[in-house]
Amino acid sequence: MRVVTNPHLYAVILAGGSGTRFWPLSRERFPKQLLQIIGEDTLIQQTVRRVLRVVPANRICIVTNQFQADSIQLQLVEWKEELKDGFILEPEGRNTAPAIGIAALRLVRRDPDALMAVMPADHVIQGDVKFKAAISVGCRLAQDGYLVTFGIRPTRPETGYGYIHPDLRARLGKRRGLCGYKVARFVEKPNLAKARLYLRKGNYYWNSGIFLWRASTILEEFAKHLPALLRGLKALNGMDQSGDAARQFATQYKKLKSVSIDYGVMERSSRSAVVPVDFSWSDIGSWGSLDEVVPRDKKGNVKTGNVVDLESRDSIVFADRRLVATIGLTGMVVVDTPDATLVCPKSRSQDVKKLVEILKRRGAPEHLEHVTVFRPWGSYTVLEQGPGYKVKRITVLPGGRLSLQLHHRRSEQWVVIAGTARVTRGSEVFDLRPGESTGIPKETQHRLENPKKEVLEIIEVQNGPYLGEDDIVRYHDDYGRAQKHPTG
Amino acid sequence: MRVVTNPHLYAVILAGGSGTRFWPLSRERFPKQLLQIIGEDTLIQQTVRRVLRVVPANRICIVTNQFQADSIQLQLVEWKEELKDGFILEPEGRNTAPAIGIAALRLVRRDPDALMAVMPADHVIQGDVKFKAAISVGCRLAQDGYLVTFGIRPTRPETGYGYIHPDLRARLGKRRGLCGYKVARFVEKPNLAKARLYLRKGNYYWNSGIFLWRASTILEEFAKHLPALLRGLKALNGMDQSGDAARQFATQYKKLKSVSIDYGVMERSSRSAVVPVDFSWSDIGSWGSLDEVVPRDKKGNVKTGNVVDLESRDSIVFADRRLVATIGLTGMVVVDTPDATLVCPKSRSQDVKKLVEILKRRGAPEHLEHVTVFRPWGSYTVLEQGPGYKVKRITVLPGGRLSLQLHHRRSEQWVVIAGTARVTRGSEVFDLRPGESTGIPKETQHRLENPKKEVLEIIEVQNGPYLGEDDIVRYHDDYGRAQKHPTG
Repeated sequence: MRVVTNPHLYAVILAGGSGTRFWPLSRERFPKQLLQIIGEDTLIQQTVRRVLRVVPANRICIVTNQFQADSIQLQLVEWKEELKDGFILEPEGRNTAPAIGIAALRLVRRDPDALMAVMPADHVIQGDVKFKAAISVGCRLAQDGYLVTFGIRPTRPETGYGYIHPDLRARLGKRRGLCGYKVARFVEKPNLAKARLYLRKGNYYWNSGIFLWRASTILEEFAKHLPALLRGLKALNGMDQSGDAARQFATQYKKLKSVSIDYGVMERSSRSAVVPVDFSWSDIGSWGSLDEVVPRDKKGNVKTGNVVDLESRDSIVFADRRLVATIGLTGMVVVDTPDATLVCPKSRSQDVKKLVEILKRRGAPEHLEHVTVFRPWGSYTVLEQGPGYKVKRITVLPGGRLSLQLHHRRSEQWVVIAGTARVTRGSEVFDLRPGESTGIPKETQHRLENPKKEVLEIIEVQNGPYLGEDDIVRYHDDYGRAQKHPTG
Repeated sequence: MRVVTNPHLYAVILAGGSGTRFWPLSRERFPKQLLQIIGEDTLIQQTVRRVLRVVPANRICIVTNQFQADSIQLQLVEWKEELKDGFILEPEGRNTAPAIGIAALRLVRRDPDALMAVMPADHVIQGDVKFKAAISVGCRLAQDGYLVTFGIRPTRPETGYGYIHPDLRARLGKRRGLCGYKVARFVEKPNLAKARLYLRKGNYYWNSGIFLWRASTILEEFAKHLPALLRGLKALNGMDQSGDAARQFATQYKKLKSVSIDYGVMERSSRSAVVPVDFSWSDIGSWGSLDEVVPRDKKGNVKTGNVVDLESRDSIVFADRRLVATIGLTGMVVVDTPDATLVCPKSRSQDVKKLVEILKRRGAPEHLEHVTVFRPWGSYTVLEQGPGYKVKRITVLPGGRLSLQLHHRRSEQWVVIAGTARVTRGSEVFDLRPGESTGIPKETQHRLENPKKEVLEIIEVQNGPYLGEDDIVRYHDDYGRAQKHPTG
């Protein structure tokens, strides 16, 4: 595909997220952007493909955190080389302003004239040509010093979004049928009466959370409206993030003010502009809004996976390999995952967030991650755990290799079920084929490796009084991970 | 407890059942009687305890089939000795008349004056003293040659039960506040208008499916109303059920007429009587009727297992170890099991049956049995299966021992996670402790045994091109099971 836009344009994809709204399909460590909601690609894959229409892959920067980075890198492996310097890892999410600030500092250093298009990784946008046109208009205004937002024409009296009211007298140029305006005012999430009024008036737009500006402009505005945050970010910008310095970086980062770019800058700046756009957009903020973007069947249902239904309508049923049987549902959401199931009416799907907060307070592991966890070398799935044992299926990609490691408190038994395992155990190295097995006593250095071109799968049975992922001493790791990074 | 009733009284517990109505908690091979619905005991355990108030355990006869027998025997292990000759295994369910007929033939042989109290294994009855009184009155009438039914006073216009209308002019004796009547007529499941009429009139009773008669009387009535069936049953009564004869027995049994005792005998006989009783009774015929017997919480919910709920009411949520999260449900049923989940409104819970029929037609394994299957030596749970492999957790009770066996097409790897495994492999015998493992190549005789007093648990990983339970050659079995009986 020909990329014909501004040579100074960069894309900054915000890929953090708390994973609460699409729970149990999303988790704190596996948020919405990693889900395949519509089409073949996950949301972050779609976002990257969309962005590639306006910038090459080596001008994409992805801001995320260490817990989500493995999964994201695995999903974006197609652009592994181009993206290898493109990741910024936040030690902890501090809302959008710090993430955007740190990306801006990095970009001005790389290109003083950098324009940055900032967007969340987990929105659904349909209409790539219109998206490209909007970015093109945005670039023009950004070069003129504006902080550009993209406004979506409301289709319903939505109370879940902020609105942008343009100053219609202050038009800022027109191109390919689109024009921009200075912003008259930003409106926080309105009540229903107000939302209805805005919909009727027609000159109010949903705030899409997509922005475009010169990196230098946004930093000037940080200096004006968030000077302390900017100082903190500048201090961090010089810091090393590897080895022991990582902990210091994290400590400093967590001290940054947690503030959104909207509240911190956009609503205060005199340079805010809005470009009303005409691509189809949804932030699919809850299960209930899924059918804004996913096609329904004749009865109004959205069903995926192993579902058997009798006479339901207007319902969303997400299953996986387990069987989900439904009878006579109306307007319901049923989401099944290997370790947790959600059932609620669509009208209550905003409250999933509350439910996940309860789980988090209780320390329920189901809020945090899936039973399948992705790693740079592949993935593992916890099949069962009980007193003194844990059973995992471990998948190692061709050429993948877990770290050379040792456990103090558990032994492991490995049975190969597919492919070939190259096992290092103490000073021995040997290969195992399906149906063959070996045992790794505690306190024994070992490594698991897939030397072949087919996927390796093993069943691992752990035994011991303590089976936490943090009982690991890592001697060598292909993926440069820190000493205590969990499993493999 | 003192058993003070008739020395000729025997109890016949009908423990077949198709396992459809309480799916997915019940399965074809694990029907409702095996479920713990209310209280500490399962329904069949409750039924046996109730019956023990009127007969000793060695006068209990349980009619079931080979697929359910292991699970039932495991649940009734407390009375293992007394019940050892008490089981009648039907090769296939042929409705109630054949099951009752074969039990009657066996009882008259044992005691020509035998009275038999016949009841399903899966009803909930509260009020043991009242139950005992009813049986006492029933015995009197049975000795006088009546076919006694027990009638339940309706509490709602139920369309799911048959009704019995007594002939109030033909009173048959009174005892402890109860009396019997000759039956004027049996009414099949009525429509709602009729059900309302019966409720208003007050002299119509639900047919509880509990009966009492002399074994010789019911056989006389078989001779009159079901002569062909009786001949078939008599032919079977002399047949051996062990070894090769079992197949012949099964073939003959399957030729018997499938007919209910109500339709085949009771509705046609002039000797039918009814004793209106005052114990609380429910056949809990569907999930929706569960809250007739199980206490609801303040919001009208019945919840068990790992459930996190926000603001639901009048709902039934059954979870197990997996997390089930519910928000804002009203009048819903959610039932979660390791391999299948059901979601439906209470008002549609009668249709669970239809759904299970669909699953059965599709050959879905979830209609047939649970991932955990009970055996005389313990149980196994399928944790996962995929192409070329299957992972099981196997539990062996103290002293339990699987058969000495061999598989042609799969190898097995065993890892002990609790207890001590005594392994026979070819000519070797050795013990394994937690964290130790061994491999059983295909075509190798092997046996797994628990020699200790604590439970043994192992993880078994099977590998091979065919992993069906029927790839087994059995050389010796402690439990006298047929050559091809699945697993262990």
